[in-house]
Formats: sequence, C-alpha cells, structure tokens
Amino acid sequence: MVKQEVMNTAILLISCPDRKGIVREIAGFIADNGGNIVHFDQHIDYQKGIFFARVEWDISEFRIPKEEIESSFKPTAERFSMNYSLHFSDTPQRVAIFVSKQGHCFYDLMQRFRSGELKGEVKLVISNHEDMRPLAEFFGVPYHYIPKSRENKRSAEEKELQLLEESKIDTIVLARYMQILSKDFVERFRNRIINIHHSFLPAFPGAKPYHRAFNRGVKIIGATSHYVTELLDEGPIIEQDIIRVSHRDSLEDFIRKGKDIEKVVLARAVKWHLEHKVLVYDNRTVVFD
Amino acid sequence: MVKQEVMNTAILLISCPDRKGIVREIAGFIADNGGNIVHFDQHIDYQKGIFFARVEWDISEFRIPKEEIESSFKPTAERFSMNYSLHFSDTPQRVAIFVSKQGHCFYDLMQRFRSGELKGEVKLVISNHEDMRPLAEFFGVPYHYIPKSRENKRSAEEKELQLLEESKIDTIVLARYMQILSKDFVERFRNRIINIHHSFLPAFPGAKPYHRAFNRGVKIIGATSHYVTELLDEGPIIEQDIIRVSHRDSLEDFIRKGKDIEKVVLARAVKWHLEHKVLVYDNRTVVFD
Amino acid sequence: MVKQEVMNTAILLISCPDRKGIVREIAGFIADNGGNIVHFDQHIDYQKGIFFARVEWDISEFRIPKEEIESSFKPTAERFSMNYSLHFSDTPQRVAIFVSKQGHCFYDLMQRFRSGELKGEVKLVISNHEDMRPLAEFFGVPYHYIPKSRENKRSAEEKELQLLEESKIDTIVLARYMQILSKDFVERFRNRIINIHHSFLPAFPGAKPYHRAFNRGVKIIGATSHYVTELLDEGPIIEQDIIRVSHRDSLEDFIRKGKDIEKVVLARAVKWHLEHKVLVYDNRTVVFD
Amino acid sequence: MVKQEVMNTAILLISCPDRKGIVREIAGFIADNGGNIVHFDQHIDYQKGIFFARVEWDISEFRIPKEEIESSFKPTAERFSMNYSLHFSDTPQRVAIFVSKQGHCFYDLMQRFRSGELKGEVKLVISNHEDMRPLAEFFGVPYHYIPKSRENKRSAEEKELQLLEESKIDTIVLARYMQILSKDFVERFRNRIINIHHSFLPAFPGAKPYHRAFNRGVKIIGATSHYVTELLDEGPIIEQDIIRVSHRDSLEDFIRKGKDIEKVVLARAVKWHLEHKVLVYDNRTVVFD
Repeated sequence: MVKQEVMNTAILLISCPDRKGIVREIAGFIADNGGNIVHFDQHIDYQKGIFFARVEWDISEFRIPKEEIESSFKPTAERFSMNYSLHFSDTPQRVAIFVSKQGHCFYDLMQRFRSGELKGEVKLVISNHEDMRPLAEFFGVPYHYIPKSRENKRSAEEKELQLLEESKIDTIVLARYMQILSKDFVERFRNRIINIHHSFLPAFPGAKPYHRAFNRGVKIIGATSHYVTELLDEGPIIEQDIIRVSHRDSLEDFIRKGKDIEKVVLARAVKWHLEHKVLVYDNRTVVFD
Repeated sequence: MVKQEVMNTAILLISCPDRKGIVREIAGFIADNGGNIVHFDQHIDYQKGIFFARVEWDISEFRIPKEEIESSFKPTAERFSMNYSLHFSDTPQRVAIFVSKQGHCFYDLMQRFRSGELKGEVKLVISNHEDMRPLAEFFGVPYHYIPKSRENKRSAEEKELQLLEESKIDTIVLARYMQILSKDFVERFRNRIINIHHSFLPAFPGAKPYHRAFNRGVKIIGATSHYVTELLDEGPIIEQDIIRVSHRDSLEDFIRKGKDIEKVVLARAVKWHLEHKVLVYDNRTVVFD
Repeated sequence: MVKQEVMNTAILLISCPDRKGIVREIAGFIADNGGNIVHFDQHIDYQKGIFFARVEWDISEFRIPKEEIESSFKPTAERFSMNYSLHFSDTPQRVAIFVSKQGHCFYDLMQRFRSGELKGEVKLVISNHEDMRPLAEFFGVPYHYIPKSRENKRSAEEKELQLLEESKIDTIVLARYMQILSKDFVERFRNRIINIHHSFLPAFPGAKPYHRAFNRGVKIIGATSHYVTELLDEGPIIEQDIIRVSHRDSLEDFIRKGKDIEKVVLARAVKWHLEHKVLVYDNRTVVFD
Repeated sequence: MVKQEVMNTAILLISCPDRKGIVREIAGFIADNGGNIVHFDQHIDYQKGIFFARVEWDISEFRIPKEEIESSFKPTAERFSMNYSLHFSDTPQRVAIFVSKQGHCFYDLMQRFRSGELKGEVKLVISNHEDMRPLAEFFGVPYHYIPKSRENKRSAEEKELQLLEESKIDTIVLARYMQILSKDFVERFRNRIINIHHSFLPAFPGAKPYHRAFNRGVKIIGATSHYVTELLDEGPIIEQDIIRVSHRDSLEDFIRKGKDIEKVVLARAVKWHLEHKVLVYDNRTVVFD
C-alpha cells in the first residue's frame, strides 16, 4: 500500500443537478481506466437538488495520460451538466500573500508553508507598508511595497494585477490586509481570494470589530475566513472559530486572544483551499475536510 | 470547617467610582462585626474608573442581625457613593417562567430547579399557549394560559403583572417565550428578566435566526442569554456558547443542535443570576463566576 | 425533490480490503436497479489497507424488493470479501435502556426519542433500582426492576437477556448504569451496547472519575461514549466532549458540569448508532456523521 | 485614571490557613500606606481550610519604598502564618527556554515575548541539538548547544545550571524539550519549570502520546502545560486545551493539529506564570486569570 502523502493523485470537484447514476458514472470513469479512488466525498443539497462531489484517485496506473484526463471526462460531464474542475496533487498552487502592518497571520502562514503543512508555493508578498519586508526576506520571498491611497487605488491595483499575472498566481491570501479590493480586481480572482476577518461574521463586519465586540459586552469573540466578493465581509464563509472572553478582558486582551484564533482559522481555510476541498455555491461553501 | 453549601451567607453586590481604600472599608465592616469572608471578587473598569465587587460572608457569628445589616452598611456605602444590593443565601428568589410552544428550555430549567442545581422557587408558569401545561403539572407548578394578540396585548400584560405581583416574583425567565414584552413591562423588572436568544448575538437578532444562519452559510451557531431591555435582543449579555455546523447539517440539524446550546446557556445565566453573581452596567455584565 | 426526512432508504455499511473498482461496483449495483444514492461516505485506512463505506439510497423506485436486496448484493459482497450489513430507514431499531439511580441521561434520551430526534423505539427500561420508575411511567415505557448483587449476578443477567430477547432488542443504551456486564452478556450484543463514561477516556477509567479528576487538578473534564467490550472502559470510542473547569469549581461543580456533557455525548453516540453511521474495526470507530 | 498597562504595581501572592479578618488585614496594609488596589482575587479551599489571594496595587503613591515593602508586610504575614511572595510589575522575570528539534513552540513564544504579549526577558536558549540555532539568532538570543546522553547527563546538567545561575534565571520553559531533568535539577527550580506535554493529561503521559491517542481511537486530542516535578508528567497542571479529531485524521493530522494546541496552551501558562497569577498547592494550581 503506497503511503497516501506521496501518492500522485487527480482531484475532481463537481457540482451538478442531482439525478440517478452520477456516482456510478464518475466511479466507472475512474475504474474503467485503472484508477484507484482514495477519497470519494459527496453531498446533496436537497432543497435545491444539487449534487456535489470531490473525488480523488491514484493515477500511478491510470491509463489516460494526465494531460488528456480533462478531455476524456468531458462527455460524462456534459451528459450530467456538471460544473467541474480538475486538479493534480503534484501541481502545487502558486500563492500571493497580501499583508499590511500586522504580521501574526503572515508569519504563521509562511511557517506552515515552509514546514510542508500547507501545500503551495508562495511566489510573492504585496503590502501597502514596508513593515513586513524583513520577515519576507527571512523566508526568502519577494516583497513588493505598493502603497495605496484613495487617489492611486486604480493604478496600484493595476501594478498588483501585473505582478500576479507575471507570477501566474492561482490564489491570493489576505493575511490581515487592510485595504478593500475593487470589484474588478475581485472578479479576476473569483473564489480565489481568501480573507481573514477578525470577528464572528455576520457579527461585526467592517472596521474595528474587536472594539465593537468589547463595547457590546459579548462573552465570546471569533474570526472568520471567507472568499472575497464585491460585498465587504459577505463572501462565502470557509471557516470560523471562537474563544471565550469575560469582563476581566480588556480591549487589548480581546485583540491578543483574537490573534490566536485568526491565525488558525486562516490557516485551516488556506489548507482546505489548496487541497481543493472547498466548493462554492450560492454564497456558501461545501468543505470536504 | 462548615461545608460551603449549607453555610448561611450574606452577599453584597457593589459598584462605585474607583478610589483608594474601598476594599479595606468593606472588609473592615465585615471583620469588625465578626463575619468571615468566603468570597471576595473584585473588578475595575479602568477606562471608566468604576469599581465592582461581590462579597459573600458567613453570617453564623455575625454580630449585626440580618435585618439590620443593610442600615448598618449604609454610611459606608454613602461615603463611597456606592450602588449596592444585599442578599441572603437562605432567601431563595421567587421565579416565574414564561414559555410558548417549545419546551426544551422549560423542562431543562425545571429539572435543574428540582435537583437543587438552581437555587430558587418557581412560583408560576405563564404561557400564550396550552402546550406546556402537562409538563408544568408534572412538576407541580401553577400554569397560567394567557393568549396574546396585537389587540389584547396591554390587558394580557396587566393580567401577567398582577400574577407576578401576587406571587412576589423576583425574576422572570423567558424560556423561548415568543412574544415581545412592552417597554412598561420591562421597566418594572429591569435586569430581572432573562431571555434566551437562539443566535450568537449581535449576529441574527430578531426572528428566525437559525434560518438566517443557515442561509448565510455560517460554520458555527450559538445562543445568547441576556437581560431584556426595551430594545429587542440588545440587552446586556450574560452568557453565550456555540456549536459547530457544516454543509452536512440541514436547517433541521441547526435547530436540533441549537437546542442543546440554548438549554445550557440559559441554565448558566439563570444560575449566576440567582446566586447574585451578575452586575450590570453600561449595557454589559460583570459575571463573578 | 422528495424531502430527505421522509424518504424510504436502504443503508449499506461495508468494510473490506481496499482495491480498485469497489465504489464503481457498489454505485453500479444501485444505479442499475433504479436507486438514487443520497449519501455516499467512504473512508480508507491506508496503514491497514481497509476500505469503509456507508451508502444510502432512495428505494422508492428500486427494482429489487426490499426482502431480496441482501441476497442480490451478496455476489458483489463476496467478490470483494466485504463485511457488510443492510438496514432500512423505515425499520427503526428496538432499544432497551439500562439505568441506575441517576436519571439525567435517561430523561434526556427519552425526551429526544419522543421528539423524534432519535429514531428508534424504546421497548423497555431495566434498572437495579426503583428510582427511575416514575419517569419511565411518565414516558409510558415498561420498567423492569432487577436488583443485582455479587451473588445473583448470573441469574439477574439471565432474566435481563430473556426480556431483551422477548422484546427483540437491537441496541442497549447504558444511561449511567452502574453495573459491569459479564463477558457472556457483552458477547451477545457485540457493538450494540453503548455506554457513557463520565471522563475523558483513557483518562480516569473505572470508578469515581470526577473525584480523581478533581484531585489531579485538571483544567478540563469530559465524557466518553463507547461500545462496551469485556474490558472495562476500553471499548471503541464513538464520541467525546469536554467542558472547562477551574480552581473555583468544587467537586460538586465538576459533577454538575459533567452531567451536561454526559447527556449530549451519549445522545450523539446513540443518534449516530441508530442511523447506522458507525462502523467498528480494530477497537476504533468510523463515524460517518 | 492611569492606564493599567503602564502602572507600576506590587503583587502579593498569599496562601494561609483560612480565618476571619485576613482580607481586612491585607487591604488595610495597602490602604493605610496610600496604595490603591487594582486587583484583589481570593479563593478558599473549603475542604482543606486554606485561603489564597493575589493582590495587586498601584505603588505610585505608596508611602513604603519598594525595597521595604517585604519587611513591612512581614508582621502581618507571620500573624496569619502566611506563605507569601512579593513581586513588582516593573521587574520582568528572566527566562531560559529549553528546546530540542521541534521549533513550533519556541518560535511562538519568542514572537510573543518580542511583541510584548509575554512580559519577561529571554536570556538564553539551551538545546540538546543544533537545529534551533538560526531561529535563536534571528531573535538575538544566546544559544547554548548542550548534547545529552545517558553517560554525560550529570555533567550536562551541571553546565546548564551554571549558565542558568550566571544569567540569574527565574523561570525555565521547556518548549518541547525531549529530555527528562534530574530530581536535583528540578528541586533547584521548584514550581519555576514549565513544560508542555502533547496530550490531555493524565491520559497518555510519557512518550509518543499522539501515536497512542491515534491507536486508542480518541475523538479529541489535547495538550497540557504543567510545572515539572520529579514524577514525569505528574506535576501541577496550569492549563489544558483540546481539538477535535476524527477517523479522517491520520497520525500526521493528529500531530499537525496538536501543534496548534501545544503553542497556545504553553503560551497561556507562561503568561500567567510571568504575571504571578499562579499559586501551587497540593500538586494543583490556583490560576487567577
């Protein structure tokens, strides 16, 4: 038995109208061609009648060459009106990290990439401040300082988009990046920009959530990782977690405790995304964890 | 050493402007009169400069008779401009429970009162439906059916207030009571009406929080127990807790899982309130748990 | 789209050596006969090379009659050396509850059965004490008082086994039943007796776990639901959960807080078991939740 | 109102037989000399009749000079047979970190010290491996490589003790240091060596806890921070926390998820210790968090 970690696999993410025979058809495509399914996760939204699946199979003895799998699967996909995407475990995603002044999430991510916990390659860091340059250099990742103001926002984003294109970036992680991206920018990376918001959404969207949580006197604070959409803090939620607070906690304690939650929530979301475990529909996510 | 549970104690809840010597003064009042402090919890809000304390002492050898303690303490209280209240562990609060059709919180509370976990005496149950009558009868508590409509709201509340007064009710628990109380009613029981809201406030205030949480695609749901104010679901929060959900959970699963959280969150809040562990200020709570 | 809750489904629980084509074969058996898969959960233990699956399909238009499904599937099962079991959603399990003096789990379960949250039929209650009789009567379930001592253990168990047989009991729930069942008894209901132990196993197996947790000065206590085996508190774990404690909590607080955890942990385990979501192997469980 | 963070305070940690008048006496000592109490936390162990307190007061206008406070308090302490220690918020503790090959806790601590979240000065790092040297250099802390074998253990510890003495170390943090310290070594730093064990003690003490947790099939894993005693993993527990696992998690997932818990549990314990919030008695802790 080959160890799962080092196996070369293909991953299909599928959503389509639910009907009879889908699983058989997908499993048949794989088995008929000599593949061995290692994960088959499936979910049905009964209210809406939608079928979702994530199928991962060992391609070491698969008779269809990697570059032809997509075209070979196409007829099946069309017959069932599938939305689908195909990925390979040996093709890590290319990642850009956006950061502002606070480095706790940035460092945490970099250390997880370096240790191999996160599968992906961080190709560049973009920041509207210079603060995180030393840390980027410590990790050996190119750092691009692109300041932003109301006036230069459009030209700054153009510069960013060019950098992202040059490095063929697949996924953008906003690791406490305190700038709102334009609608156009977001469109270009639909469901590929992951943000961490420092509250338990939909509570406290927007600015200064810890201040507002403190003033409201909540007994629990949280963090939310979501895909960025054109509506601020309203994109599909990937992961959330919380920590207890009490009257003994000052605003500073809220912020300090919150950081620990922000780090792990963002790391989990990025991990699932990079392993192609997240499907988005209807502003919600299916996470095959 | 007397066992803590059976000890007769007095409890002082105090808030006042912070300044030097408060603790000494309070501790002195107790020690000078032969009392033994069993709990001394103190908190300072530095931003606002407010001192809070909950002091509980054994009165078995206290030289001031119970009925004179308040007047004896008054000069100290006035010197420090204290807001304070005095309670005795052998005087359980008189409780009314309001309930509608769903009985999970109601049963849970009754069972905790019966087992002695909640210190207090449930004197009556008021409901706008007949559904919970059998359960009230099982526990031997008078059940008052007071239906409510837009038209009769005022007269219904008058009936309720009369019942509450006749039974000398100290505290009202809304155990999933699906009616909004009038401003006048709330005023009469300021910081003495405890509600359970089936969401993680301030997320999803108002109607159908589980439906809205489900549609928003959150990964965690919660419940919040708070004192009722004239602003719906905006009163001081006493306790909150949460439970994980995923895409595999249907709306029915949200509701089912939520019930388990509602029960424990309400029970904790009621317990702390009945043990005089909750201080309210500025629409927030200090909970000396 | 038929609502999931009221759908008539068949459920296959399967484990077998992992090899190519299993999913296709299972899915093919269902699709070829007109079934619509509503859940397909699969898991592979790579270390041991074992494949596990839980497949649930709508049988409303299935061409094989219910009573012939098992024999029709047999050839497939044999070809892959499957261990398997077949269940139907419209055939609720028949349940016996064993209880001693403490009723919190017993009541909690009964209320969940009554509300329909737990799918199953409680056919009888067996106790070595009389304490829970009134509650059993409140819920209308036959109550059998079978006292136990070192001397009469064998004959008492025989009486119990006879009652269980007469009522064709599928599953036994030990809802804080403080007697150890004999090896023979356990053999008769292998992986069908669910116990709740009031500690976070493998910490504090055996007697008085809260006392020992209190003396050890732990900061978190827990509860564990597991299948009973001949080794005390060492059976396959189905579910665990925890709650925080501190130095402020007395032993009585440990016990009180623990009860809330015991109830929900046992209820979750029983729910999963009754919905045929638990597979046991190697003294561990796969829970397709 | 002076901001709490920058206030100069004195802290008294006290334990003594419980009797009347203790709080008054302590509060009197402070108030009579012009101090303003900012925290007064008190706890009584009723079973054993022991009184515990942590008192923190603003010394900016205190009439007794810092260096005379201890001697001035001594008569009070003796009258009540107090065990006590006196600390000052402007005298940070001097810390040594011991680490082996795994750096996740080490980095996490260093980053918290640097950000000011942990109050203390890391004076040296000791390791039985060279792996963490670059990280220590990144943070500018002296790194001492002291390899250990069965043969050289005594001489290695002597070298360590000399380094600790030269740097006047107050507190040692074992940040995943995989060597057992001798009884003599532990004695020298009683209740001043903090370890992180990667299990939910008392479950899985000793070696390879994640492997054993995985094999036992637990549904939750944890980490425990405790003071080191001569008995392995049996010292007073300061903090514990947990994270959920399932059959979908491999042993590698256990280890990965566990690391996130180890970091926060150790950081919390170190924080409380450095802020003099932990009192040890009877192999348990009182944590005035």
